[in-house]
Order: sequence, then structure tokens, then C-alpha cells
Amino acid sequence: MSKPGLGILEKFSAHLDFIKKDTRIISLNEGDTPLIKLDNLSNKLKTNLEIYAKFEGLNPTGSFKDRGMTAAVTQAVQEGATSIICASTGNTSASAAAYAARAGIRAYVLIPEGKIAAGKLAQAIVYGAKLIQIRGNFDDAMSMVKQIADTMPITLVNSVNPYRLQGQKTAAFELVEELGGSPDYHCLPVGNAGNISAYWMGYTEYLALGKSEKTPIMCGYQASGAAPFLKGEPIKDPETLATAIRIGNPQSWDLAVKAIKESNGHFKAHSDEKIIQAQQLLASTEGIFCEPASAISIAGLIQDIQEGFIKSGSRVVCTLTGNGLKDTDTATKFIELEPLLINADIKELAQALSNI
Amino acid sequence: MSKPGLGILEKFSAHLDFIKKDTRIISLNEGDTPLIKLDNLSNKLKTNLEIYAKFEGLNPTGSFKDRGMTAAVTQAVQEGATSIICASTGNTSASAAAYAARAGIRAYVLIPEGKIAAGKLAQAIVYGAKLIQIRGNFDDAMSMVKQIADTMPITLVNSVNPYRLQGQKTAAFELVEELGGSPDYHCLPVGNAGNISAYWMGYTEYLALGKSEKTPIMCGYQASGAAPFLKGEPIKDPETLATAIRIGNPQSWDLAVKAIKESNGHFKAHSDEKIIQAQQLLASTEGIFCEPASAISIAGLIQDIQEGFIKSGSRVVCTLTGNGLKDTDTATKFIELEPLLINADIKELAQALSNI
Repeated sequence: MSKPGLGILEKFSAHLDFIKKDTRIISLNEGDTPLIKLDNLSNKLKTNLEIYAKFEGLNPTGSFKDRGMTAAVTQAVQEGATSIICASTGNTSASAAAYAARAGIRAYVLIPEGKIAAGKLAQAIVYGAKLIQIRGNFDDAMSMVKQIADTMPITLVNSVNPYRLQGQKTAAFELVEELGGSPDYHCLPVGNAGNISAYWMGYTEYLALGKSEKTPIMCGYQASGAAPFLKGEPIKDPETLATAIRIGNPQSWDLAVKAIKESNGHFKAHSDEKIIQAQQLLASTEGIFCEPASAISIAGLIQDIQEGFIKSGSRVVCTLTGNGLKDTDTATKFIELEPLLINADIKELAQALSNI
Repeated sequence: MSKPGLGILEKFSAHLDFIKKDTRIISLNEGDTPLIKLDNLSNKLKTNLEIYAKFEGLNPTGSFKDRGMTAAVTQAVQEGATSIICASTGNTSASAAAYAARAGIRAYVLIPEGKIAAGKLAQAIVYGAKLIQIRGNFDDAMSMVKQIADTMPITLVNSVNPYRLQGQKTAAFELVEELGGSPDYHCLPVGNAGNISAYWMGYTEYLALGKSEKTPIMCGYQASGAAPFLKGEPIKDPETLATAIRIGNPQSWDLAVKAIKESNGHFKAHSDEKIIQAQQLLASTEGIFCEPASAISIAGLIQDIQEGFIKSGSRVVCTLTGNGLKDTDTATKFIELEPLLINADIKELAQALSNI
């Protein structure tokens, strides 16, 4: 009998020093996400690679953020916090709101003034977070939540919160355990750069403990219009339809650069067009529907295979950070929708099926 | 080391006689969905019940349909099919399209003529299914796919396909294994009635094998505007905003009635208002965001507690059939959205946080 409700903090408590015996764990059974072998894609790309997708979009709120949020909110509650705050219009706000609800504490979400896109913020709203609009931009909102957390008894859960990375590193632990060792390459999107930093932390910790014999080469992919690591410095006004990685000034800059250097990996940038193509390719070839930002893992993989950076015969993991259901508008925007229209007649249907 | 890519057919092959040693299994790692203990809800309802949610919305395409579809598509491929067909505008079409993509076969989705709601059909579209509109209504579409499957080498994967229930029964197996026995009550939505039939099949099979000592009392909930089981006969023009259970003529009528009778359970109907209230209650109390249809499990639970049908001290499981991300419009439609607007000034923020 497995214990119901076991999330990543309980499973990996031995590797998380802030989890004590009596810590009240705030969990929604995050983690333990599917690792799906992509043989169709491998065949389509005519490679002999062993390719896997780690589908983090099947976490409770639909993104990898839940791994970090269970850690951040558990620690906040452990320290006596009765409210948390973040600046976010996307996955972070959803995750923060859900874990606050689960903890029975308040969540405040700061967003820039403007028309509220209920779709993007639907989760935060339904989970009962308090939204506050400010007359300013996203950077102003971020600056304000940082300041307020310094002066009021309210915990900041944006990725500057160090417990976020502690939770996120468990994805690497799962991978090593599922594969019986480290992959050769790990491909993933890089926006705020917390995830690549966390994976690297997880891989190196397991190596040090003798739980794996090596670490993977890290391949970090950025959207062409939001690629500060390629430029070598923060950029203003980042632009990409992969909103989850539309970030010009990554929080975890140094850690991400360290991960790439130490692993002999690289950063690469990919266009929005390639991102959407990769999203459709993955969905139609393997039946996996991920967020646009996640699909850059596949776009990057393809180019790294074509350019020979990923060596023949290797084992590669691509992290799919979020669920495609988060943004169905973008996913369908570029697909021509002209379905066949026929009469309700069985002969017409038979003919149609023979033709398409 | 757990084996990556293990779905329900491999895990439970001993209980699925169509799975042979050499069967090529078409899986997306469905199943093994979180069983989440709802202590906050239990406290809020002032009960001493042990309440669990089985969150089937975290299946690969966001609904419980994936359990049935891995079975139906695996069997279709085993029989040599190169295409599948269904009539659906919702979860079934998404699941069919995804598993067809994974299998490398074609999926056809028949839908009634009219403006295509890209949101509802987004998944089927992105997974690459071929949509065919017919000049007729949904019943016409259903009738046509049944006829065509009889005359052409194309497999029907609507719930008349018997392998669907075989796959779906594994949810009951998981529950018994996770809880170390059967729950006392099992609450779930009833639309086409395949799921309640499949759970009952799973529970009785495990009882017969000595894997549990009893079966639960089944509580099947229908939307008031789509409640044929309450009326005792099919109804025309069913109406509810819980679209996943907007069904007037359930496919699995006899099996569902049998489940309710044999388990000493009951069917009950609940209004759309109660459904939406329950959806919000669950999200804001426990951090779990499910589809409207799923939320009827919670609406029904609450009434069954209040009316004394569910006895004090019991262990209850509520199935949440689909992910809230499937339909964010309905979820937010009834929530008043007037967030506070403040200047980008830290003092104003501090004051706002003290007041809300």
C-alpha cells in the first residue's frame, strides 16, 4: 500500500534539510510526473537517440512550479506566515494560489494595471488569491513585492525565494531514479533560469551521494526575443509568444551560467515559429500537448541533433514545463481550421474517410 | 528503479485479458493519479469523515477518459486498425486524438455543424485529429460513427467500445491499493454512465479476488438539467453548464443501475449553481481545480452528508473526472472580478494588504 498524498517533500525529505520530523507539509501530490519515451519522435528525426519527455505539465496546477511552491509554502507556514505574495500573471500565480489555499493562508498576486486576461489568471482567481493591480509595469510589481516582504510579515514566493529551487531539484532526483542513472543530455527552457539551476543542483547532489555516476550535459533554450543569456546581459522588453519564458532579467543568472559551464552544455535561442512547430510536432507525433515555452525543449533538441551537439546513441531528457491546456489560444492560432463539412449521410462519410 | 512509461495496461495486465505478452501497448503513462486527502473540506463541513479526491484531471489529456482510451486504442491496433473514429466535442475527442497520435494511426472526430469552439476542440486539433462537421446534431453524428464502424475497417472509440470500461476499471484497483481496502462511499459524476459502471466492475473484481473485503456504496450524481436516471428514462435536450455530463441517453444505463442497486447507493441530481459553488469551494479550500462536471462529486457529497446518507466516521472517495483548465471560462464566469487598483507605491500596497 502506497501512502496517499505523498508529495515530493516527503519522498525526498532526506535531501531537504528544512523538512523536519514535525514539519507540517503542504502538498497536493506534486511530482512523480510521467517520463514518456518518445520513440515516434526519434524515428521521425531518424536518430538512434533514446529520447524522453518529463511531462511536468501533469503537476497539480499544470506546471513544474508546484515542486518549488510546495517547498516555499511549507517553509512559509513553518516560519509562521499567514500570507504569501508574488508578482506574476502566469504559472507562479496559479501555483502560489493553490498551495496557499491548501495551507489555509492568504495569497496576494500583484499584477500590472490593464485588462485582466481571465484565462491567464483563471487559476489564481478560482483558487481564491487576492489580486492587486498596480499602476506600473511588471518590474514595478516585482520590486514592490520584494520590498513589502522585507517590511511586513508576508512571505515572498517568487523565485528569489530559495526554497523554490530546493523543491524543483527533486525533478532531477526522480529522473535519475527512473532511468537508473543520469541521462547524457538534459534539454529545457530557460526563462527566469531557476529550473536549470535546480536540475543542476539535483544532479550534482545525487552524483556526490553516489546515486549516479555522472551528470548530464545541460542544454538551455531561450526564445529568440527573450534571450539574455545569448546576449550576455539582461535585455529590456523581452518578446515571445512563449509567455512562460518571456523574461529579460533572469533571477538565477549565476547559477544557470554555472550549470552550463560545469556540464559543458550551452545556451541556444529559437524563434517563436520553431517553438510552435515543435509544439505541434510533439502533439501530433506523440500525443503530448505542452505549453509553448515547454516546446522549446523539443525545438532545441532537434537543432542540437542536426548540428551534432547531441551525439549519436545518447539518452536525452526534455523537460516539458507546463500543460498545453494553459494556453490553447496560442496553440491553435497557427493551425488552419477548415474541417470538411458533409451531409448527415453515411455514404458521404464513407467517401470522406476514403479521401482524407 | 521504476520503469518509465508504465501505464495502467502494463500495471494491471493480470486483470485485463485482452493484454497478451506481445501486445504493443499504446500508453501515455495514464493513471496513477493523485489521491488527495481533503482535511480542509472535512473541517469546513464539520464532519469527522475521511474524504479523498481522486484527481483524474491529471491524466495525460486532462481527464479520466485516458484510462479507457489506452485500452481501446491498444486493442484497435492489436486488431490491425489504422484509424479510429468518435463523435465528440469534448474529453473523448481529446483523448482519442492523443492516443491515435501516440499509436501512429489516424483519428477522425465527427462534430455537429456550427461554429467550431477552438477552445473545446483545441486538444483534438493540436493532436492532429481530422475533424469532420456534419449537417446534423450530435445524435446524428453518434449514429453515423456507429454505422461506419460496422461497415469500414475503422474502430469506434466512443464509450460503446467495451475496452473503454476495461481500462477505466483500473481506477478502482488503484484506490483499493492506495487505501489498503475499499472506501465506504464512492461519489462521482454520472453522464454517459460508463465511469460508474467501470468503477463498480473494478471494485467487484477486486472483492472476488480477495484484494478487498467489501465494495463501497456508490453515489452517482447528475446535473438537474441532464438527469435521465432520476427520471427513469432518457431525456431529450439535456442542459447543464457541466458539459462533460450533458447527456440525455446514457450508453451504460443497465450497468449503472446495477452498480447503484447492488451497492445500496443512489442517484441524485444537483443544480448548476451547486456545481459551480462546489467547484469554487474545492479550489479555494484545497487548491484543487477541477472541471464543472467533476465538481458535482463534491456538491453531491455535501448534500449526502447533510441528509445523513453518508454516515459519520466513514471513508469517502470523490472522483474528479477532469481538469479545471479544460474550461476556465465557465469557472470564472460567476466570480466577480474587481481587483483593487493602487499606485506603484509601497505605502499604498502596505495599506491595501492590511485591509483585504
